[in-house]
Amino acid sequence: MPVNLEAPVALALVAGVRLGSAEAAIKKPGRQDLLVIELAPGSRVAGMFTQNAFCAAPVQVCRERLAATASIRALLINAGNANAATGAQGLASARDTSAAVAAAIGCEPSQVLPFSTGVIGQQLPVARMVEAIPKAVANLQADAWNAAARAIMTTDTVPKGASRTVATSQGPVTVTGIAKGVGMIYPNMATLLAYIGTDARLTAEATDSLLKSAVAASFNSATVDGDTSTNDSCVLFATAQVGSTDVDTAHADFPLIAEAVTEVCIELAQAIVRDGEGATRFITVDVEAAGTVEEARLVAYSIAHSPLVKTAMFAGDANWGRLAMAIGKAGVPGLDPAKVDLWLDDVRLLDGGEPHPAYHEDLGAAVVAKPEFTIRVALGRGTAKTRVWTCDFSYDYVKINAEYRT
Amino acid sequence: MPVNLEAPVALALVAGVRLGSAEAAIKKPGRQDLLVIELAPGSRVAGMFTQNAFCAAPVQVCRERLAATASIRALLINAGNANAATGAQGLASARDTSAAVAAAIGCEPSQVLPFSTGVIGQQLPVARMVEAIPKAVANLQADAWNAAARAIMTTDTVPKGASRTVATSQGPVTVTGIAKGVGMIYPNMATLLAYIGTDARLTAEATDSLLKSAVAASFNSATVDGDTSTNDSCVLFATAQVGSTDVDTAHADFPLIAEAVTEVCIELAQAIVRDGEGATRFITVDVEAAGTVEEARLVAYSIAHSPLVKTAMFAGDANWGRLAMAIGKAGVPGLDPAKVDLWLDDVRLLDGGEPHPAYHEDLGAAVVAKPEFTIRVALGRGTAKTRVWTCDFSYDYVKINAEYRT
Repeated sequence: MPVNLEAPVALALVAGVRLGSAEAAIKKPGRQDLLVIELAPGSRVAGMFTQNAFCAAPVQVCRERLAATASIRALLINAGNANAATGAQGLASARDTSAAVAAAIGCEPSQVLPFSTGVIGQQLPVARMVEAIPKAVANLQADAWNAAARAIMTTDTVPKGASRTVATSQGPVTVTGIAKGVGMIYPNMATLLAYIGTDARLTAEATDSLLKSAVAASFNSATVDGDTSTNDSCVLFATAQVGSTDVDTAHADFPLIAEAVTEVCIELAQAIVRDGEGATRFITVDVEAAGTVEEARLVAYSIAHSPLVKTAMFAGDANWGRLAMAIGKAGVPGLDPAKVDLWLDDVRLLDGGEPHPAYHEDLGAAVVAKPEFTIRVALGRGTAKTRVWTCDFSYDYVKINAEYRT
Repeated sequence: MPVNLEAPVALALVAGVRLGSAEAAIKKPGRQDLLVIELAPGSRVAGMFTQNAFCAAPVQVCRERLAATASIRALLINAGNANAATGAQGLASARDTSAAVAAAIGCEPSQVLPFSTGVIGQQLPVARMVEAIPKAVANLQADAWNAAARAIMTTDTVPKGASRTVATSQGPVTVTGIAKGVGMIYPNMATLLAYIGTDARLTAEATDSLLKSAVAASFNSATVDGDTSTNDSCVLFATAQVGSTDVDTAHADFPLIAEAVTEVCIELAQAIVRDGEGATRFITVDVEAAGTVEEARLVAYSIAHSPLVKTAMFAGDANWGRLAMAIGKAGVPGLDPAKVDLWLDDVRLLDGGEPHPAYHEDLGAAVVAKPEFTIRVALGRGTAKTRVWTCDFSYDYVKINAEYRT
């Protein structure tokens, strides 16, 4: 059961974007598992991808095409098969399926970006996908963001999407994004599968810059299990349908659009953690008073990735001894436990490395019984801070991942 | 159920060592949970401790006393309470309980080393321990290693011990060790709770050197969950009962004794992983053809700590896509997937980063169905290698750690 998360009601249309899905029976029959997103000519597209060395074939093809082509016209996304660790045949499959999209919509294959998620190490069912692609293209509609969010799901239990509209000097700009998770989630300077569209008219540099800052503030702070996917990809497309002047990073509209995109990305990143495999708790980890952001992140991820912390949170056990353990093992050089303070929401647990005199188990237990709370740590070393979102570790995480391929 | 592990039959006596346990009802009544180990005058003692910054009070006291005193006479070990994150009162408790041992056996408090494991963040029940200590001292016997191995257990399901006897120029030397685990196991340049005794006559330098090399070859290659305890401690004591010449590192007997101690440590380290919380598989991870030992360890621990790999192994699923993911996310700079080979025992899965043509799912499934197997990775970068032992991740790991304090 996802934590405080429901399917998005009605995602806003983005002028210049049409979406169409179809059934290709990639892993199993009976669901829409293939999505085509068509972009208006003149759209700017920026992408960020996994840093995993075993990156998937579609990630390699996307990187090549984004470097070579300024005029991306379509995205092809499939669920159920990651096309990763599939060698030369995997690369050919990514090219062949995107060529089928190019043929169906009338563009060059190099103008199509392919994406895959699902099982690693199996070849894509190219024939079934090539057969389904014209059906997806025939289904292209502007008003299909909700169906698209559903088509890209794998172990997600809820489709994920968010919209914002912001007034700019050239008129109202809309931002809509969709994303999927929800295991192998620890984006490393990259992100998971997320697509954010806006009708704003952005320069190429502004599009890149906006994506980088939004990802840093959102997906790069989310973790479910500390495992970095081979397929993480995040794409921002700006269809240039609003106004006639290109917005660069110095333009007065840029921060307005950036804020809307960042808000959409944060909502999507949190949605992925809320729907994290087996999650019963949505946990914000705030680390402050650190010497550097880097050491704040060491501590935050040491807590967020600790199996012992995560199983205690699942049990509703305010086992702050395990929090102290996770802080201590983070590898911050010269960390002085006597300067460390710790809270669960507003309940003070550690005061200068020792149990706070006013703390009772009941106070902590009341916090971790809730589906959503904050673990806050102050290191007493400086002013740097960071925030990470994570979930607990339940029987269902084991069940989902033990049974994934069966 | 531990994996291919039974309680040790009869551990060999070590001249100069007596052990006595008693019931102190530290966490719950009804078991021997307090152990005193008495050492003959003239014993050499070396210790290695956790690198966790939140190290426990007894670890701090041990470090002080080993630095100040050459003549340790006793060890006090309790299960059920870690005496960690307990502040000034915790330090006083460690001193007070070891003073009670000193009074009972007739030595200075500074000659007693205290050790604790169990729940973090609760104060030691000093009064109950001080009452039990004279009973443990009254029980001191040379032939009590098996009972001692049982007294130090926490979530262990099987007591852990090993013995070796080796012929030296001064006569037969015996080495016996005991250890406990079995969660929060990822020793970081230190180890977990382990005590290794020998009747050899070693110099102080030889004792230190022997412990460091044995730990590097054993406990530092074991991981259950990647969480480094606040209480990890490993102690080697040499009672100088055999022969009359001190053995230094240049002595011909040194490598013989070192081999025996290392073998005992490897058997104990493997026993801890075999009894890892919820373990159903004992897995050896071999990484070879690495550029450096450091990068071999990055890859080995990335595999051994991946929740997705560990849950697949629990399911008996040869999900090598997750192995490729874990290799790729390890952070080895410039790793080329096209040079990576992967085996499960003798079954070749990846050949130059691509699925091996002869591989079928049935071959991999037959390996991971076994309780004990090896994951072998060759990185194609050099000649460095490493070996790590780990276990799988089961429902019972979640159950044990969700219910630990209840």
